[in-house]
Amino acid sequence: MSARQTRAPRPRPHRSTPAFDLAAYLAHSTALVNRALDRFLPRAAAKPTTIHQAMRYSLFAGGKRLRPALCLAAAEACGGDCREALPLACAVECIHTYSLIHDDLPAMDNDDFRRGKPTNHKVFGEGIAVLAGDALLTQAFEIAAQCRGWPRHSHQAVVLELARASGSRQLVGGQVADLEAEGRRVAVPQLRYIHERKTSALLSCCTRLGGMSANCTARQLEALTAFGYHVGLAFQVIDDILDVTQTSEQLGKTAGKDTAAHKATYPALVGLERSRRIAAELTERAFAALRPFRGRAFALEALAQHLLGRDR
Amino acid sequence: MSARQTRAPRPRPHRSTPAFDLAAYLAHSTALVNRALDRFLPRAAAKPTTIHQAMRYSLFAGGKRLRPALCLAAAEACGGDCREALPLACAVECIHTYSLIHDDLPAMDNDDFRRGKPTNHKVFGEGIAVLAGDALLTQAFEIAAQCRGWPRHSHQAVVLELARASGSRQLVGGQVADLEAEGRRVAVPQLRYIHERKTSALLSCCTRLGGMSANCTARQLEALTAFGYHVGLAFQVIDDILDVTQTSEQLGKTAGKDTAAHKATYPALVGLERSRRIAAELTERAFAALRPFRGRAFALEALAQHLLGRDR
Repeated sequence: MSARQTRAPRPRPHRSTPAFDLAAYLAHSTALVNRALDRFLPRAAAKPTTIHQAMRYSLFAGGKRLRPALCLAAAEACGGDCREALPLACAVECIHTYSLIHDDLPAMDNDDFRRGKPTNHKVFGEGIAVLAGDALLTQAFEIAAQCRGWPRHSHQAVVLELARASGSRQLVGGQVADLEAEGRRVAVPQLRYIHERKTSALLSCCTRLGGMSANCTARQLEALTAFGYHVGLAFQVIDDILDVTQTSEQLGKTAGKDTAAHKATYPALVGLERSRRIAAELTERAFAALRPFRGRAFALEALAQHLLGRDR
Repeated sequence: MSARQTRAPRPRPHRSTPAFDLAAYLAHSTALVNRALDRFLPRAAAKPTTIHQAMRYSLFAGGKRLRPALCLAAAEACGGDCREALPLACAVECIHTYSLIHDDLPAMDNDDFRRGKPTNHKVFGEGIAVLAGDALLTQAFEIAAQCRGWPRHSHQAVVLELARASGSRQLVGGQVADLEAEGRRVAVPQLRYIHERKTSALLSCCTRLGGMSANCTARQLEALTAFGYHVGLAFQVIDDILDVTQTSEQLGKTAGKDTAAHKATYPALVGLERSRRIAAELTERAFAALRPFRGRAFALEALAQHLLGRDR
């Protein structure tokens, strides 16, 4: 995925983002990631077949592969080769998919649809859905273990990064806080706490791992952390907004679920307009974080622009 | 845990096992492991507190720490220092505990009691129990990542070992096959397939990781693999037997559940006597696997003797 090959011929009227064909970039990175995931995952015919079918069902259910794209783009922003980042990008996608399968369970968010398709437990039953999540989480570490480590970032540092972003203080902790917030009055700091953990932690992990695979400097790693954090928070605020403003068909999942479940959301707490301003401000901060890359992070910029620009 | 310190003064009348105070050994290794687990796990007061309380509830619910003991004993059999093996022993115990929490869920085995205490979901609810399992699985990799790797066994090899033993082809695969076998006619090969994955894979992983932490040779690793495999299978056959022959009070969990759930077990398929002979034969094979250690694996021998010698 050489950035040169995927640059669009015509400039776009967007802010500082240079001429860049994001659609082509995403199509290319998605194809790369899908091929790699297909290679890393056990075949659907491998025994016991049910678990491998269930893992593949959710992993290949049409996810937009934004997390892997962020990981690959971060590697490129640091002058790296995206092939080095590919296993890490796939590992993060496995973690993301496992978290969706478990979040959708009846004991959690009780969602019947995801990306326009029946959720894992609706197809395979609750027991297998729990196990498919477990297996994808474990698979993530098996895949990540296949990277080799780099002079500035050891194999150990890579595994720790993935484990910490996914663990009880971050990704899992966010879902716990989200479960506990349901039906209760929640203030903005608590909502931010949830979003930081449910979304920012893993997006930040994506960009950091990408940077690490390119043997990035401490300063680049810091910039990628701030970028991932702010994009993640903005992404989640926008997700809250979309739940209010879009139909189920547009979303590919049940719309208005957050409101129906009395879930705390930014629009519910601060209103739609202020939520939009917050999302815009967070994205500005994400762009600001990319300054040390002096224009070499155009894929990351375009991705952030894309994430903020979703139809609201 | 120097083996010298824990040797009993009087010889015991058991087969080839030399004079060895297993109770003292287990007490010492359990104390070591408990202290290390307490250090590795986030405090119960760490936010979000619910998840850390739920993780600790099951992790410190009185498990016998046989898996960690096997890991430490394997390291010692290879001439290593058990402090090197300790993080790996703790990682395996986290994996084991997560698998119990998820196996006990209503969507799986639906168990209300474990080790004489209410199961995780009975105390914390199903949603938190799923997440506590997820968090412990992730924690296992965070802990394992803290080992440093050894000349013959890299950090990468250690993480891969843990991931493969816990993944969809082994531990998770075994639970899937077990779920699918419920209420169906199952033959011995299929039952063996389940036990190999649900129990042998992780026990073999324990002894292998212990050996790796002692920088063991390929031949030692092969011996530890065979030992763990056969002890694991024997352990599971005995568990099947205990379910038939003991009361809930003796077991610390609901007795006769396997029979009530029409679960395939060795006693149900081949009868109690033949099951006992199979268990004894498997343990003989486990002992045979230890021959390359020429008597230095006395802790492993004593552990195998203990596992087979459970009151049936």
